[in-house]
Amino acid sequence: MAKTERSAIQPTRAQDYAEWYQQVVRAADLAEPSPVRGCMVVKPWGWSLWENMRAALDGMFKATGHRNAYFPLFIPLSYLQKEAEHVEGFAKECAVVTHHRLEADEQGALRPAAPLDEPLVVRPTSETIIGATYAKWVQSYRDLPLLINQWANVVRWEMRPRLFLRTTEFLWQEGHTVHATEQEAWAETRQMLEVYRRFAEDWMAMPVVTGEKTASERFPGAVSTLSIEAMMQDRKALQAGTSHFLGQNFARASGITFQTQEGREEHAWTTSWGVSSRLVGALLMTHADDDGLVCPPRLAPAHVVLLPIVRSESDRGPVMRYCEEVAAAVRAQTYEGAPVRVEVDARDMNAGERSWEWVKKGVPVRGEVGPRDMDKNAVYMGRRDRPVREREARPREAFAAEMPALLAEIQQGLLDRARAHQDEHTRAVDDWDAFVEYFTPRNADKPEIHGGWALAHWCADPRCEEKAAEHRVSIRCIPAEAPAEQGECVVCGAASERRVLFAKSY
Amino acid sequence: MAKTERSAIQPTRAQDYAEWYQQVVRAADLAEPSPVRGCMVVKPWGWSLWENMRAALDGMFKATGHRNAYFPLFIPLSYLQKEAEHVEGFAKECAVVTHHRLEADEQGALRPAAPLDEPLVVRPTSETIIGATYAKWVQSYRDLPLLINQWANVVRWEMRPRLFLRTTEFLWQEGHTVHATEQEAWAETRQMLEVYRRFAEDWMAMPVVTGEKTASERFPGAVSTLSIEAMMQDRKALQAGTSHFLGQNFARASGITFQTQEGREEHAWTTSWGVSSRLVGALLMTHADDDGLVCPPRLAPAHVVLLPIVRSESDRGPVMRYCEEVAAAVRAQTYEGAPVRVEVDARDMNAGERSWEWVKKGVPVRGEVGPRDMDKNAVYMGRRDRPVREREARPREAFAAEMPALLAEIQQGLLDRARAHQDEHTRAVDDWDAFVEYFTPRNADKPEIHGGWALAHWCADPRCEEKAAEHRVSIRCIPAEAPAEQGECVVCGAASERRVLFAKSY
Repeated sequence: MAKTERSAIQPTRAQDYAEWYQQVVRAADLAEPSPVRGCMVVKPWGWSLWENMRAALDGMFKATGHRNAYFPLFIPLSYLQKEAEHVEGFAKECAVVTHHRLEADEQGALRPAAPLDEPLVVRPTSETIIGATYAKWVQSYRDLPLLINQWANVVRWEMRPRLFLRTTEFLWQEGHTVHATEQEAWAETRQMLEVYRRFAEDWMAMPVVTGEKTASERFPGAVSTLSIEAMMQDRKALQAGTSHFLGQNFARASGITFQTQEGREEHAWTTSWGVSSRLVGALLMTHADDDGLVCPPRLAPAHVVLLPIVRSESDRGPVMRYCEEVAAAVRAQTYEGAPVRVEVDARDMNAGERSWEWVKKGVPVRGEVGPRDMDKNAVYMGRRDRPVREREARPREAFAAEMPALLAEIQQGLLDRARAHQDEHTRAVDDWDAFVEYFTPRNADKPEIHGGWALAHWCADPRCEEKAAEHRVSIRCIPAEAPAEQGECVVCGAASERRVLFAKSY
Repeated sequence: MAKTERSAIQPTRAQDYAEWYQQVVRAADLAEPSPVRGCMVVKPWGWSLWENMRAALDGMFKATGHRNAYFPLFIPLSYLQKEAEHVEGFAKECAVVTHHRLEADEQGALRPAAPLDEPLVVRPTSETIIGATYAKWVQSYRDLPLLINQWANVVRWEMRPRLFLRTTEFLWQEGHTVHATEQEAWAETRQMLEVYRRFAEDWMAMPVVTGEKTASERFPGAVSTLSIEAMMQDRKALQAGTSHFLGQNFARASGITFQTQEGREEHAWTTSWGVSSRLVGALLMTHADDDGLVCPPRLAPAHVVLLPIVRSESDRGPVMRYCEEVAAAVRAQTYEGAPVRVEVDARDMNAGERSWEWVKKGVPVRGEVGPRDMDKNAVYMGRRDRPVREREARPREAFAAEMPALLAEIQQGLLDRARAHQDEHTRAVDDWDAFVEYFTPRNADKPEIHGGWALAHWCADPRCEEKAAEHRVSIRCIPAEAPAEQGECVVCGAASERRVLFAKSY
């Protein structure tokens, strides 16, 4: 039938990784570019993945004592300006609202009218507007800690957009908390990084390295930025979540002060932390293959798709009935505390085409049901974590009964595979020549084929980061788990106390 | 204790309805004005109500075959301009993005820089941008119906903002569907109105009248607008949801065509429908009283709050233990398919103050637990649908076991009470003098005290609507259930075939 040739993703990962990414986004029907440059349309399958991520994260935020609220889309220019580093960090990518009305000119063409006294910036992040509100809410130590999260859209003007990974508008959550002490704010910063690590590994099946950013990669205005970093299949790092210890910087800028238990007036300590819809791109680049997307079961919009195969009209009734019975039996199973999500795809289309659509969308388990399978009281099963052609007939009772365990096995298998990939392409690098060679593409046509991640010594001098940057390599983080180890900076040879994570990145 | 005097809402509804509304929003900690004029900050309790509404509606949308997606925040000016009535309807309230960068001038002050070739409008609604996308998605009758919903923020510049009811930025959902035939599109328009009616009545306990808008109140660009209208406690009508039959207007404007089964190329038929965060205001004005908010149980962020009362340190351990046991027993009960939502408020504050906070937030059931209650193996229970002082000791087992039935009773009671209020203040009005008198405030100081809703004949002439508008009265809808009835227009005396709903409105 030559289905593989017809339907697999072209080009393959090995042929052109960047284009493969775009083609998987398209083939899985996740999103598409919109008529507004830099913005995307998230299609139902892609949105459903984001909804599932959001639900899981939201549960974890609430379990750690946070509540959701909602702050304005717009930020007055003067607010953004309150924190100097902050505004400098975002000024180049701010969408600015200058008018609040449209009027027709003499030719009948619409023009902006009614200029604003003070322009408004569409939020690139909300520290300043939320800070202004918190300054009113926080009076006393009794009001602390203040633990709030917001799910929102934000805008950062993007000149080179890529679906999910870099878009002018994106969806995210931003947590903003206020604490009475430095220690508490640090504990919160670390706690939320750990929430992100658990989410990435337990839900996305995406192993990450946690650590602290160097000064050059810090969030504008933060004292310290922690991040989770994941290795994509092209061995580049993707920053998948950040948690910022803001010290008293934003509390000073916004005037968030409180009366301590002892009656002193002090500036509070704040944190902020966020993950965004770029995680959908991260999930894709962690698990997708040359046949399309692969959804980790815990986040899959559907766990199982059943495909009735009707070759003659006389088959239709019995096959559909059998299929619905199987669907009901699978739905009666519980996975992760809820019924297994089953879809029956009875569209009037060739079975092979239908099946390939679901392969490309990455549904964990497919089950074909035709007259022959009925005769054997079976379901012809395919697993998305195995090659597409590798299928097997399963007795229908077992198909349903074993589904929760199978989904758990697939989830674990995806994590194990991704971890093995990360381990395989991470190594210690100890001198500059080896470093340069490690990060040099093997083939000029395929810039993605390089060594991977390097754990190497660094002397803490930003000039050595700049030298690495000439090779498009940056320090992704100072890993949290890096043991103290005496060594020499891989760039300049000066003394170093620990290895840091160097990588090419998104 | 004089708690009532101290803590009830001031002014009362009867004293100053508009100010009472603002004070309930504040007392229930729902929202507050933001530093950005016209925009609000939705606080956790208010956001939780919106989250619960969203979850219920989302389930109803999915059960009727809709899927969620996400479209851009920005709309190019030229897109908005495609449908003439549409752009005219929204031009006066559009926030316009004209620059995508900030730069410091010589004095160091930030100024908008990098002007856009074409200004972008922050979506006031998304028909035009979604239409442009649907024109690509829809090719054949096989692609129809296309049933999509979006949860999003929208911006309509508001000169006289009121929290939840009218804000420059608000949260909403907008459904956008495409159909092959006029009949199907009409069926969808009516179906979604019915979803809104069920949501309003079954979840919000807010009775509504359904019907069609007159031409003057139609959505700009629609062929017909249906709405649900609810009576607030000041007897004014609040439009709580709209469902628009757009005919082929937007399909023509956006070029949404499809090939029919017979091979012809035709313009599709579209609908759109939405409800917004103004529903939080509607809920408040339907149920709140002079003690604050009253949450219908199905949407309440918490169903039950337990207040341990500790008068001496030796009480603390036993009281807290007892309270947690009661909480666990209540949580073990199921209401509407999920565990009853219980909070224990053990803050170090006077019990009366704590209790009043929850009264003002409208939690359906409060339970106080002190040493005396423990001795009687009881919980001292207050219901939010009864006067605050009317409380009773309930045996602890009964308190837990009867909770689901009690919550259902409160939910039904709120609906019945609201329906009785609507019925009481709705009547047939048959001549102009009586009409004017009915809508004339009894007291110039209290403009809200007028007759209520009037069912009156109307000849279908817009000039008669204008005459009613001089008395700040409009036709809210032509009720769906209005029987054909010969009569004379209440304004001009011309022949009329049915009564319509006249009211003052938000």
